Amino acid sequence: MANKKITSRDVDFAKWYTDVVTAANLASYTSVKGCIAILPNGYAIWEKMQAILDKKFKELGHVNVQLPLLIPENLLKKESELVEGFAPEVAWVTMGGKKELEERLCIRPTSETMFSDYYASHVKSYKDLPLLYNQWCNVLRWEKETRPFLRSREFLWQEGHTIHATKEEAEAETKQMIEVYKWFHHEILAIPSITGLKTDKEKFAGAEYTLTNEALMYNGVSLQAGTSHYFGQKFSKAYGIKYASKDNREEYVYQTSWGTTTRMIGGLIMVHSDDKGLVLPPRIAPRQVVIIPIGFQEKVLELAKEINEKLNQNDIVSYIDTSEKSPGFKFAEAEVNGIPLRFEIGERDLENKKITIVRRDTSEKVLVEIDTDIVTFTKDLLETMQRDMYQKALTRREELTFTAKNLDDVKAIMDKQTGFIHADWCGSLKCEEKMKEIKGLKSRCILENQDLLTGKCVVCGNPAKHLVVWGNQY
Amino acid sequence: MANKKITSRDVDFAKWYTDVVTAANLASYTSVKGCIAILPNGYAIWEKMQAILDKKFKELGHVNVQLPLLIPENLLKKESELVEGFAPEVAWVTMGGKKELEERLCIRPTSETMFSDYYASHVKSYKDLPLLYNQWCNVLRWEKETRPFLRSREFLWQEGHTIHATKEEAEAETKQMIEVYKWFHHEILAIPSITGLKTDKEKFAGAEYTLTNEALMYNGVSLQAGTSHYFGQKFSKAYGIKYASKDNREEYVYQTSWGTTTRMIGGLIMVHSDDKGLVLPPRIAPRQVVIIPIGFQEKVLELAKEINEKLNQNDIVSYIDTSEKSPGFKFAEAEVNGIPLRFEIGERDLENKKITIVRRDTSEKVLVEIDTDIVTFTKDLLETMQRDMYQKALTRREELTFTAKNLDDVKAIMDKQTGFIHADWCGSLKCEEKMKEIKGLKSRCILENQDLLTGKCVVCGNPAKHLVVWGNQY
Repeated sequence: MANKKITSRDVDFAKWYTDVVTAANLASYTSVKGCIAILPNGYAIWEKMQAILDKKFKELGHVNVQLPLLIPENLLKKESELVEGFAPEVAWVTMGGKKELEERLCIRPTSETMFSDYYASHVKSYKDLPLLYNQWCNVLRWEKETRPFLRSREFLWQEGHTIHATKEEAEAETKQMIEVYKWFHHEILAIPSITGLKTDKEKFAGAEYTLTNEALMYNGVSLQAGTSHYFGQKFSKAYGIKYASKDNREEYVYQTSWGTTTRMIGGLIMVHSDDKGLVLPPRIAPRQVVIIPIGFQEKVLELAKEINEKLNQNDIVSYIDTSEKSPGFKFAEAEVNGIPLRFEIGERDLENKKITIVRRDTSEKVLVEIDTDIVTFTKDLLETMQRDMYQKALTRREELTFTAKNLDDVKAIMDKQTGFIHADWCGSLKCEEKMKEIKGLKSRCILENQDLLTGKCVVCGNPAKHLVVWGNQY
Repeated sequence: MANKKITSRDVDFAKWYTDVVTAANLASYTSVKGCIAILPNGYAIWEKMQAILDKKFKELGHVNVQLPLLIPENLLKKESELVEGFAPEVAWVTMGGKKELEERLCIRPTSETMFSDYYASHVKSYKDLPLLYNQWCNVLRWEKETRPFLRSREFLWQEGHTIHATKEEAEAETKQMIEVYKWFHHEILAIPSITGLKTDKEKFAGAEYTLTNEALMYNGVSLQAGTSHYFGQKFSKAYGIKYASKDNREEYVYQTSWGTTTRMIGGLIMVHSDDKGLVLPPRIAPRQVVIIPIGFQEKVLELAKEINEKLNQNDIVSYIDTSEKSPGFKFAEAEVNGIPLRFEIGERDLENKKITIVRRDTSEKVLVEIDTDIVTFTKDLLETMQRDMYQKALTRREELTFTAKNLDDVKAIMDKQTGFIHADWCGSLKCEEKMKEIKGLKSRCILENQDLLTGKCVVCGNPAKHLVVWGNQY
């Protein structure tokens, strides 16, 4: 609501973030510790994210399924790295009705176990491959510190799980899906994310390797926003996912998984929003245009309706705010809720044959002749806004991207401002942990196919193997 | 798959049902007791159900949210009838990570508790009302006997939860939503369901009353498929959902909830399917047309592609089966999967300038001239099939609907065939329980606005209050 005060982003970023979440009615805390309620404004963004990603997944041949929420302990234990990675943070069901269970069940923190178990009992022949399954569902991780969208005990996500006859196919799938996440961030969310390989320390428990999509927030902190894992035959050997090949030999499948979550909503906020509230790129905004009639003259309302219909008939999501609030209140409400374009139509405007259009991202006002082709004008303006928001985020990312040749460089950067720090690395866990001592810096990703900066590890000075992006994380 | 044998429906209905579920790849058993995996063919039906219902809900002003999966025990206990109704069948989380929880949490069996708790802390003024929230999610009930789709420990559903300033509005909502479910069954699923009021014995725990949508399966057994509950102020008083009225008095809201689940997929199967597998009404079929080229002549493939494109461009979901199986195998596969129309295109057909179209429900073959307006022809045929399937289900329902004046009548009917039994009832629990002694008959619903049959209770002969439909249930 317009009367909820939002802390300035530059004064207290963390408080600003939760203020925006609350003021824009995206989510609310609940009586369940660490779990949020996703409210209509927030859920509508998730629905649009789902629709766009789901369409893309299906175009690439994936199909949706739904596997059980609960995982028997013995099944989970079959893959040792997975259970070690997740056991500290799962919730356990120990009672069903009034009875203690013989075997406890965990609420899925991720579903490699269930998919592997399913595949193991259903795949027989090379003709059954590949299987390209995805599911949209809730998962639960027993986090200690939580924040709306960014980290909560329960969250919503999609998890793709695929199995393939060959290593090449599975690796191509792993790569393809991180590219989908990157495309989604760049083209839809207007977030210029970067992608690369996780170090062994940061990869998914049980994966041979993890590709990651990393976004940089306005304050310079990174957000992991989509990962794609290549498992090789690790799970297929642990769970026995075998098939008969063309020449009738018994083979293990190659496997991948990939996921994105409701935390992308948090990323959207932290990249684009401002002190007036939510700012949404037009392509992800559930409502793109609000028309606010000033006064209740019939002519004004008629024009509002006419424009509203025209826009909606041409795939622009528009609505008229006809509530009994004052125009000023409605303006503020449209602002805090991040509606990309605000159309103001008043009696005086009509006399001048003009309406006012205000962009949410720049607050820029445009006076538009009434007899303009309003659909084309609006579509163009929405696309301009989408591009400008991407460009602004890219400029910010570039401002907050640094290079470091040695630890003194790193410290000097971090004394001023966190961000993406490019630095060479020898590949040793020891040096990775040394970096963490500098205000918690972690490797975000290894950049692929990029030249080393100095050829020497930023920590130990020994020959470097990789150019790594380091940063703080949510 | 075509080679999976399906038991005859008339020989063993229960076995036939699970055979169809398995053969059409709708769902599969899993390593988690009482929980199924919903497979691509089954999940695609659920997605289409969701899309159609969600659109309707939104047209009626509802918005989607997502509330937590886990409910703290003290919250659940606030409404005594609810907790008594559900406590025997919930799963309890007692450990988070490696720690025993101070308060155990149940996995939602339904979310009246969470919605009431949310509403209580967020609603302030009459201006906030009504709130028309819905969520699509999973719920869990610790059932002892389970069956794919019909009864499983975890299932997917939507649950609407609304609050209103007045009794009239809340009752109108309750009524409206059962009408939506009825519309969905009649118009989309081609299932001629009946609606009415549940008796006090059969109503939802905590509701003032429950309206129900009841479908009759091919074997005469009833399936409750959608309920809508009116809570009055029961929950609002238990959870403290208060608001300031226009004249600034403190008032409690009036509340409703309503839900439908993945069990509707079970209903679809048991109403329409046959010994060859799944039969789907065209409006709910995820894929409506399969085109099977016979042979690999270029001309045949070209025509298949041309028709396929035309159909898909005109909102008919069509695909070409170009796999390397034999035509006969493809025919059988399309049949078991319930694709409404099968187009066969062979070289000889081309010479005769004709293609063959086969209806899944009747196996009727139509020869169609190649230069027919294929889009219009297909649309008409799909609509005819939809109507015919409804009519066939209605005829079956009428054949299995009986009237009884006394217990002898009831026994005579039940000795032959279960179904919907219409009989007058005095309103006493005692007589309701007496009916249950006859092969487990339960009241399905009280028919509204219908004349009594005899004016006397079918059990005790005392003056009757209601005309009730009795039946067996899944």
